[in-house]
Amino acid sequence: MAILAAVDALKSNQLVPTSNLKFLFEGEEEAGSPHLGQIIDRYRDLLNADAWLMCDGPVHQSGRKQVVFGARGDVNVDVTVYGALRPLHSGHYGNWAPNPALMLAKLLASMKDASGRVAIPGWYDDVEPLGRAERQAIAEAPVNDKELELQLGLSKTEGAGKLLLELINEPSLNINGMSSGDVGTLARNIIPTTATAVLDLRLVKGNDYTKQVKRLVDHIKKQGFHVVNHDPTPAERQQYPMLAKVIPRSGGYNAERTRMDLPISQSVIEAVASTSDQPIVKLPTSGGSLPLSVITNRLPTVTISIPIVNYDNNQHAENENLRIQNLWDGIETMAALMRMK
Amino acid sequence: MAILAAVDALKSNQLVPTSNLKFLFEGEEEAGSPHLGQIIDRYRDLLNADAWLMCDGPVHQSGRKQVVFGARGDVNVDVTVYGALRPLHSGHYGNWAPNPALMLAKLLASMKDASGRVAIPGWYDDVEPLGRAERQAIAEAPVNDKELELQLGLSKTEGAGKLLLELINEPSLNINGMSSGDVGTLARNIIPTTATAVLDLRLVKGNDYTKQVKRLVDHIKKQGFHVVNHDPTPAERQQYPMLAKVIPRSGGYNAERTRMDLPISQSVIEAVASTSDQPIVKLPTSGGSLPLSVITNRLPTVTISIPIVNYDNNQHAENENLRIQNLWDGIETMAALMRMK
Repeated sequence: MAILAAVDALKSNQLVPTSNLKFLFEGEEEAGSPHLGQIIDRYRDLLNADAWLMCDGPVHQSGRKQVVFGARGDVNVDVTVYGALRPLHSGHYGNWAPNPALMLAKLLASMKDASGRVAIPGWYDDVEPLGRAERQAIAEAPVNDKELELQLGLSKTEGAGKLLLELINEPSLNINGMSSGDVGTLARNIIPTTATAVLDLRLVKGNDYTKQVKRLVDHIKKQGFHVVNHDPTPAERQQYPMLAKVIPRSGGYNAERTRMDLPISQSVIEAVASTSDQPIVKLPTSGGSLPLSVITNRLPTVTISIPIVNYDNNQHAENENLRIQNLWDGIETMAALMRMK
Repeated sequence: MAILAAVDALKSNQLVPTSNLKFLFEGEEEAGSPHLGQIIDRYRDLLNADAWLMCDGPVHQSGRKQVVFGARGDVNVDVTVYGALRPLHSGHYGNWAPNPALMLAKLLASMKDASGRVAIPGWYDDVEPLGRAERQAIAEAPVNDKELELQLGLSKTEGAGKLLLELINEPSLNINGMSSGDVGTLARNIIPTTATAVLDLRLVKGNDYTKQVKRLVDHIKKQGFHVVNHDPTPAERQQYPMLAKVIPRSGGYNAERTRMDLPISQSVIEAVASTSDQPIVKLPTSGGSLPLSVITNRLPTVTISIPIVNYDNNQHAENENLRIQNLWDGIETMAALMRMK
């Protein structure tokens, strides 16, 4: 809406954009953009451009506008472990029949150490070091960790004392959800038959998402699990005391980062800065992910993100929200980009 | 229905019961029998009896009829751990904001060792040793572990090699359910705000359920958690990096066991045996629980269980079922008990 309002504003003020503008609105980003590559392949002449400007994600937690030169890669993985073929009475069979909830708890617990660092061998190995411009940009960015902790009711953070700005430049592993049996009023005295977790693996420059998934699978095997990529047969459940179905979801992709010292990078920074009294924040990457590499793998171009929404928008969760002032500010940002030098 | 059909059968054959019969049908057993004690207190004259015969639970896994002289005690406990006050984007905050699913996984994993033995200090301490009659009854009972493993698709059991018959004479700890965020199609890239597990603690003679819950709470504290019995305030969430709400559900009770060498015990065994071509199984306790101690704490009586349903009935879970032959057999069992010498 901010983009379209900016187009209207330019028109009604008889201002001409300084570049040829093309718009792509993709509706599958939250599902991992599984068709974006095909769309680009089919319409590559139509879609080629000197730069792709992405408008997803929030401004900095300080409230200052930001320009972000990359995004982490992402891949989701579903993990299911198995107990008995049928649910069992927890009194008659408890502590005799294996409980898949306990098996999953032990598996997940093995993936990270007490400080929250990923304990899977090689997890941090392939990270491409940041350049001087990137390190300087991070050093100049405001640090809001303490205010965030206060707002979020946290008295401690993960990452062995590292700042949020440092941690988003590393690969991560998050449990999006886990489930076995029922809790609350639906809970009954049973041993569940399965337990499932959905993992979210974020990747930085240097990481390959298939390699990172392989590290995860190797770790699961090392914990004693036989790993399959299908619903196990009764014979497999009979054969392997510890059995895990591990399925990476479609739509995984690698991280991407654009150099901050390119002329187009500087033009974008100047355009955004021209709309703000405060200094803007420049970052080499966002913590969140965008299918930037899907674009740059197919087209000779660069990607730069200019996010506009509020950082406390509960993105991906209940009570997702939009702060109206961010919409007004965003219209100005978009108009400035359309008129950038 | 088996009890009522047996009454009808006696009537239509003009057979008189050999005892005065009283029937109590309780509808809250699956909820922990929270009002049974009050009911007995109010109607103690009406409810007093030489023996209470309980008809809940399954026959032996061998298909043979059984008489069971006790039941384990039981108490359920809800455990919830906390992350940030609002759900967070797993890319922007993952591996900085603590993930409660991981915290719960590590906590649950700490409760049992690799062989499935409960690792909470003192868990097995108060167990009252079995008497000679009980040990002999267990030794005489058929062992079906291998057949059960085959049926249930299990290639390994918990309990460090002990048989099911031995393990149900020990206290247990089972995860009935655990949940954090969402899995499957509802999963999103978030850090959940809470993670919850429902635990089922089974108790044997000698255990006190409040003491066993205290051992659990002490163990949770020793893992670094500040334990509360209410939804934590934002100030508490700010103050304690690891915070657990631990609430025992109402309706907990201790185990109970009746001596197998009492005259009434022998009469019950003979009555049930008279209806079966095969030897019947006699056990000192069932793995499942019944509020027997709620009765014997209030009335000068003994309790004996004569279960009739099929063992593979998916009790407490989906596809719960009743084998019709067990109903027919059960009517005979009930009629024999009404006519026992």
